[in-house]
Amino acid sequence: MNVGILGATGVVGRQMLECIKEQGIQVDELRLFASHRSAGRIVHFQGKEIRLESVNEDSFVGLDYVLGAVGNDVIRQYLPWIQKSQAVLIDNSSAFRLMDEIPLVVPEINGDDIDKHHGIIANPNCSTIISMLAVAPIEKLSPIVSITATTFQAVSGAGIGGMQELSQQIQQLQQGEAVQPSVFPVQIAYNCIPMIGSLLENGFTSEEMKMQNEGRKILHSPELKVNCTCVRVPVYRSHSISLTIQTKKELSLDQIRESIKSFSGVKLIEDMVPTPLDTSNQDLVYIGRLRKDENQKNTYTLWCCGDQIRKGAATNTVQIMKSLMHSH
Amino acid sequence: MNVGILGATGVVGRQMLECIKEQGIQVDELRLFASHRSAGRIVHFQGKEIRLESVNEDSFVGLDYVLGAVGNDVIRQYLPWIQKSQAVLIDNSSAFRLMDEIPLVVPEINGDDIDKHHGIIANPNCSTIISMLAVAPIEKLSPIVSITATTFQAVSGAGIGGMQELSQQIQQLQQGEAVQPSVFPVQIAYNCIPMIGSLLENGFTSEEMKMQNEGRKILHSPELKVNCTCVRVPVYRSHSISLTIQTKKELSLDQIRESIKSFSGVKLIEDMVPTPLDTSNQDLVYIGRLRKDENQKNTYTLWCCGDQIRKGAATNTVQIMKSLMHSH
Repeated sequence: MNVGILGATGVVGRQMLECIKEQGIQVDELRLFASHRSAGRIVHFQGKEIRLESVNEDSFVGLDYVLGAVGNDVIRQYLPWIQKSQAVLIDNSSAFRLMDEIPLVVPEINGDDIDKHHGIIANPNCSTIISMLAVAPIEKLSPIVSITATTFQAVSGAGIGGMQELSQQIQQLQQGEAVQPSVFPVQIAYNCIPMIGSLLENGFTSEEMKMQNEGRKILHSPELKVNCTCVRVPVYRSHSISLTIQTKKELSLDQIRESIKSFSGVKLIEDMVPTPLDTSNQDLVYIGRLRKDENQKNTYTLWCCGDQIRKGAATNTVQIMKSLMHSH
Repeated sequence: MNVGILGATGVVGRQMLECIKEQGIQVDELRLFASHRSAGRIVHFQGKEIRLESVNEDSFVGLDYVLGAVGNDVIRQYLPWIQKSQAVLIDNSSAFRLMDEIPLVVPEINGDDIDKHHGIIANPNCSTIISMLAVAPIEKLSPIVSITATTFQAVSGAGIGGMQELSQQIQQLQQGEAVQPSVFPVQIAYNCIPMIGSLLENGFTSEEMKMQNEGRKILHSPELKVNCTCVRVPVYRSHSISLTIQTKKELSLDQIRESIKSFSGVKLIEDMVPTPLDTSNQDLVYIGRLRKDENQKNTYTLWCCGDQIRKGAATNTVQIMKSLMHSH
């Protein structure tokens, strides 16, 4: 199996390399693509030295899988070359997620959709992956009527630059220096910023609408209603989401607990509360604070956290590749 | 006018002193009460030297107002002595908030309730004050059916110790030292903790139920339904709340905007998003991100922030005292 990673020096690209090792995937040839600036640098992987390459028209020839960890514009530019090579693209950008013929997959939820691909499979938005893994065990028991979500999103969602900006601002403040926001619109250190993505005409942001648009596709629930508020918080790499979920059928908390316990990819936390720090550097989504709304019918509230770089991006992508490899 | 402050060395007590100055209140005698440990220390106020006192049975004799910034047990212990002195107690603890005969007041919302007091007026929970100031302009237009709230609460809510714990943990992590949580149950630096107050049988925390119980009393809406999730975030002194509000009548966003603009104590932010840093060290509650739920009838979502130490506690208390002084 020959695999290429686009954006191999980014926070998600580097995590993909780790995940390939951890998931025990045997790769014959691995090509790592990065910007011109990084090209030529050496990366060590499974005892081999791999030289970072910049992309050209022939870069993908001979590859079976290309894992995309670059922006929408960049992946659209490379797509014709990837398709010519016949490699399957598993892509982390939002460029292809809502296209009808392209599966949008969280393997634990809709892994069967992988087989329907025609050369491209999309990896969902990070907050959406983590939230839907908390919703899916409930959706197994009853159709979901509506979701009200408020996210607590880590700075890693803005890449290495976002993580550096947080630590830099903390240091600048300690030294009494002025903070110069660059990745985030205003200071993120000791602050919360309720604006991720671009503002749309309906008053929601592009990031907030992903939870509904991608959630509908992942859960095969075209009528799903989601009201989402996305907030950046000074946390390094795990996202958390406060979710209130209304179901069609009445459920008991015990039913929901059992469903979570038997669902892959999630862990029910009952003795303590899950925090983003607890879920950092591992692959499970933790679910806690499960309770019943006291006033509204069939309504359940919970809190979930998951590593944005891993299950929110790299782990999920590598799981999809592994599933494809096994089905061949 | 003679005024006493209980808990004068705490973060709220010290802010009360500032607020008395800022609100231009002329105080003849000011008595500052603190623990035995602090008693004897000198505090400067309006050109005078004031010696911190510890409390005894006769401490309140001759006072017109006592502002309470101590815990429930402490204020209950002092109450008989305060009542004997005939001073009016304006109290920040939760000991008296839900008692029928005791007004629970946010002056901009239910200032008229102040007149109904019999010696005690309660100051609401900090997140509740800030949230209700965002809800009240909407409630002026239509009865509120339900509120779904997720809070982002600053460490100042746990007092000076909470603020010190955050800065200490940041330093410890920089020096590679182990973090020892003490005020908060787990590390708060670079983390979010979805657990404030004690866990109740219904799965909500005591802090979360305050939003409903106190909100009902402040808005005079005994049927108000609130589903609240309270989360501690690594922010120093302003709380933020993500609110989704369902009204009985259909409203336009313009109606809501106009109502916010003409309401005291709040500021509508339309060009940028309000963050907890923006609202620190001032008295207004900022409201932003106002939008209409696209799927649910008569449902509006917004984000609000306010300084927990000021409007969430000290400012509100001093406003109540000022109002009492003017009505005499």
